[in-house]
Amino acid sequence: MKIVVVGANGTIGSAVVKELGQRHSLVGVGRSGGEHQVDITRTDSIEALFERVGKVDAIICAAGGLHFGPLGEMTPAQFNIGLQDKLLGQVSLALIGQHYLNAGGSITLTSGIVGSEPIRNGANATAVNLAVEGFVRAAAIELRDGIRINAVNPTVLLESWDKYGPFFPGFEPVPASRVALAYVRSVEGGQTGQVYKVW
Amino acid sequence: MKIVVVGANGTIGSAVVKELGQRHSLVGVGRSGGEHQVDITRTDSIEALFERVGKVDAIICAAGGLHFGPLGEMTPAQFNIGLQDKLLGQVSLALIGQHYLNAGGSITLTSGIVGSEPIRNGANATAVNLAVEGFVRAAAIELRDGIRINAVNPTVLLESWDKYGPFFPGFEPVPASRVALAYVRSVEGGQTGQVYKVW
Ligand SMILES: NC(=O)c1ccc[n+]([C@@H]2O[C@H](COP(=O)([O-])OP(=O)(O)OC[C@H]3O[C@@H](n4cnc5c(N)ncnc54)[C@H](OP(=O)(O)O)[C@@H]3O)[C@@H](O)[C@H]2O)c1
Ligand SMILES: NC(=O)c1ccc[n+]([C@@H]2O[C@H](COP(=O)([O-])OP(=O)(O)OC[C@H]3O[C@@H](n4cnc5c(N)ncnc54)[C@H](OP(=O)(O)O)[C@@H]3O)[C@@H](O)[C@H]2O)c1
Repeated sequence: MKIVVVGANGTIGSAVVKELGQRHSLVGVGRSGGEHQVDITRTDSIEALFERVGKVDAIICAAGGLHFGPLGEMTPAQFNIGLQDKLLGQVSLALIGQHYLNAGGSITLTSGIVGSEPIRNGANATAVNLAVEGFVRAAAIELRDGIRINAVNPTVLLESWDKYGPFFPGFEPVPASRVALAYVRSVEGGQTGQVYKVW
Repeated sequence: MKIVVVGANGTIGSAVVKELGQRHSLVGVGRSGGEHQVDITRTDSIEALFERVGKVDAIICAAGGLHFGPLGEMTPAQFNIGLQDKLLGQVSLALIGQHYLNAGGSITLTSGIVGSEPIRNGANATAVNLAVEGFVRAAAIELRDGIRINAVNPTVLLESWDKYGPFFPGFEPVPASRVALAYVRSVEGGQTGQVYKVW
């Protein structure tokens, strides 16, 4: 399969590339690095990416920014960061990408454990992650030509534990290699509208 | 209690006003109608509302627009309609309103059944409704001074059945008077971080 991986150089993306790269033809995409560049917050940038890359069999997104901070100081503009980046960015990739997928292809987006397990400073993350999962569940009933869509919902990664661990008391981190398997399940498996939890 | 009701003239809002108005002092707010006006998509408009109204004991929001349309034709800009209106609008009302609530006060937002039960043309609604519910669950653990926050998740209203019924095959509509009771449960009850389903 020809697979576009957005965020290919990231913590999750690089593990996905290592796993799926063994038996598929990957197109690695980043904002600054990677074989191709895209800014998923810009529609024209996503369209330009697919015009360059052409038809594909799978689209994976392991990218998207959020706002973390105390609710008592949060502004609407800060809350909008996650809406425009991790949420609308991934949704835009799916909405535009659906027209560049071969029949039977798939889209895999990324949510995260904070959607299901709120933490302090995480109101934006909870809302955005659940919205990504909701989009996936709803889009699954409308995609044409047997195209599937799923989300991977990882807990904190072992590789990110130094950075995020203090915000996740009592959470069990998982290695990126385990998270990568959930993307394999989505791309090579047959299900649609699923949220694969890795925790 | 002094209660701000945004969307007071709407289908749901007017039933809420009828129910809670029997024993509380309500401030009815609409975009064009009502005692006071606000546009929840504009931060300055929300701030101006609370500067006029002052401290309150409860904030209810029964307002917020969504985009409905086929996934195969949906654009990122269309998807952003629900993010900016029903989602960020209600979240902004909560983020700004938290500073104008008396201790022990409450915030009640509105989601909807499409969050849990996807329908055709409803990808934006599913995502937005789940995000509203996620925000409520996460904000509940951070609000100061015993302030509570909940969401009401109604199915289609009997009063809206002529307009929306065709999009909801096999769904059972409920009267606005029943939906109004869920807002009473949120405002007068003691729970926080809850989603009150009315279906
Ligand atoms: N790490 C965790 O513990 C964890 C846990 C649960 C969920 N997640 C979620 O998983 C996703 C990836 O996380 P990560 O830790 O792997 O991130 P990361 O290491 O920071 O990598 C992010 C990758 O995405 C790319 N990127 C960032 N913004 C982009 C944009 N606007 N357009 C296109 N590409 C963009 C970056 O490209 P450049 O390198 O070129 O800038 C980078 O390759 C995020 O949505 C995160 O919320 C992470
Ligand atoms: N009706 C249903 O069957 C149903 C079912 C489930 C969920 N819901 C949800 O419940 C909420 C209310 O629905 P509804 O049917 O009662 O709506 P509605 O009858 O159209 O009433 C909406 C009310 O909100 C006000 N409003 C609209 N946009 C606003 C803005 N940007 N800022 C401030 N006020 C604004 C309107 O004010 P003006 O009149 O002054 O313009 C009106 O009073 C929506 O979020 C909807 O998704 C509805």
